[in-house]
Amino acid sequence: MTTDKHPENASEPASAPVAVLGLGLMGHALAAALLRAGHPTTVWNRTPGKADDLVAEGAVRAGTPAEAVAAAPLVMACVTDYDALHAFLDPVEEAALRGRTLVNLTTGTSAQARDTAAWAAGRGLTYLDGGIMAVPPDIGTAAATIAVSGPRADFDRHAPALRALGGDVLHLGADQGRTALYEMAVVGLMWSMLNGWLHGAALLGTAGVSAAEYTEIASKGIPAVAGWLPGYAKQIDAGAFPPDDATLDIHRVSMAHLVQESESLGVNAEFPALIKAFADRAAAAGHGGEGYPVMIEEFRRPAAKPQ
Amino acid sequence: MTTDKHPENASEPASAPVAVLGLGLMGHALAAALLRAGHPTTVWNRTPGKADDLVAEGAVRAGTPAEAVAAAPLVMACVTDYDALHAFLDPVEEAALRGRTLVNLTTGTSAQARDTAAWAAGRGLTYLDGGIMAVPPDIGTAAATIAVSGPRADFDRHAPALRALGGDVLHLGADQGRTALYEMAVVGLMWSMLNGWLHGAALLGTAGVSAAEYTEIASKGIPAVAGWLPGYAKQIDAGAFPPDDATLDIHRVSMAHLVQESESLGVNAEFPALIKAFADRAAAAGHGGEGYPVMIEEFRRPAAKPQ
Repeated sequence: MTTDKHPENASEPASAPVAVLGLGLMGHALAAALLRAGHPTTVWNRTPGKADDLVAEGAVRAGTPAEAVAAAPLVMACVTDYDALHAFLDPVEEAALRGRTLVNLTTGTSAQARDTAAWAAGRGLTYLDGGIMAVPPDIGTAAATIAVSGPRADFDRHAPALRALGGDVLHLGADQGRTALYEMAVVGLMWSMLNGWLHGAALLGTAGVSAAEYTEIASKGIPAVAGWLPGYAKQIDAGAFPPDDATLDIHRVSMAHLVQESESLGVNAEFPALIKAFADRAAAAGHGGEGYPVMIEEFRRPAAKPQ
Repeated sequence: MTTDKHPENASEPASAPVAVLGLGLMGHALAAALLRAGHPTTVWNRTPGKADDLVAEGAVRAGTPAEAVAAAPLVMACVTDYDALHAFLDPVEEAALRGRTLVNLTTGTSAQARDTAAWAAGRGLTYLDGGIMAVPPDIGTAAATIAVSGPRADFDRHAPALRALGGDVLHLGADQGRTALYEMAVVGLMWSMLNGWLHGAALLGTAGVSAAEYTEIASKGIPAVAGWLPGYAKQIDAGAFPPDDATLDIHRVSMAHLVQESESLGVNAEFPALIKAFADRAAAAGHGGEGYPVMIEEFRRPAAKPQ
């Protein structure tokens, strides 16, 4: 991962024209930020009314995706899913696409991103896969992170337009599938945190503790755990897991308590039971005396099929 | 939850004698911190050699738990589990326990804490259940949080000795079961974060991304998620879940992507599959158009038994 602070390649001017396909909440925010940054901006949406206020601010309304693509060397797409993306772009003539760059900010899997990169390559269309780590109101502000994967030179060329979208613009590598993987990993971590927190709220609720009161205490532990991750990551990259803080077997004793506590209080025990199942498998594989991140080996392979 | 900044009740002097039962890594750190803070400290451990360096620093070695209890009005216990606690304390004569206070820092379930509170009440022994949110080297420093549940007046009386153990000393309420519940919730959240992170590391690993490189990006999202919790907690306490950021149904689309991505890359999909199962159940119960924390209702009840 590198930031775009020292672009190695020539870039388009900050006033380069951009076309935006898709004006949902996010696409609309992208077009508005580009306009504010001085980019001549052409917009297209399946229902044209979504463009009205952008047009009032200076955007040009395109009647079709082809018309939008024709208006700018850089096309950003932010639509519902990859099916929609292909429904809009596949009918555009190859000659109209050739030599242009598509920054695709549509959410999907890494396979969809790589397939679309191959599809684009077949049409002479440069493809960058982008991901947005921000909510629409943050677009164009320092709070938004824009992550992009694809060839570095193409990223550098379009960095000025990308910088209009957020304060933190990251290049994740040449493989166009990486952005989707990062997005998946980040939302997976988000849901894991939220569900761990919800389970705790349910536990404390049995003792009449409000979620607000519980959260005040539970939140204290989050920065501590976040602080362990870089060290644990080094262990994973080195493939060695010395139990610097606690062994997996020590964790397993507490995990058994948590399952037991959840069951006896009548709250859902599936989340802690799965946590314990992973640790038990790692212990069964002989890793009980190692540190927590040795469990990466269990996450790397599918669950064994029941006999 | 209240801090001990404004004790409402009379407290023991900072030089009050304390006895410490159990000198594992944590018990040893507790005794050392009490000594440093000027408390006359009596220590006992099943294997007496663990006390040698503490005795060299001024601690008194007790030959039996009864001898330790006789030496101080405040007894702190930090042993392997509740079975060990009762094995050590049950033989002590009731007359020796009467009028003293036990601060139990042994890890267990809320039921074990409440049962032990009842056991103590039957012997005229005041019972406070304590939890330590810190690793042993942090004991006695600002980095350590000591959480205690039990009657407020008893907490206030012993606050000076508790403050010797950490910079953040919290009273969690009169119910002695609460500390165990908070500890369970905090470790459950910790494991959830770690496993969500491990799953992401496995996903990115398939694209040749190192855990260190992945962690640099993934860590950016953690403070953001932590920042949502107080607002989500308010929704839980109010029992109303307006989708201010995104509906559960929007999350469910991404959850399906994550399961699919994990399966197609050959990494373990059980964690995202369980995350999705909770959300699908909430949607089946009619909550797909509400915000994420509506899922608290699923966490509050056991999984339906398979038919």
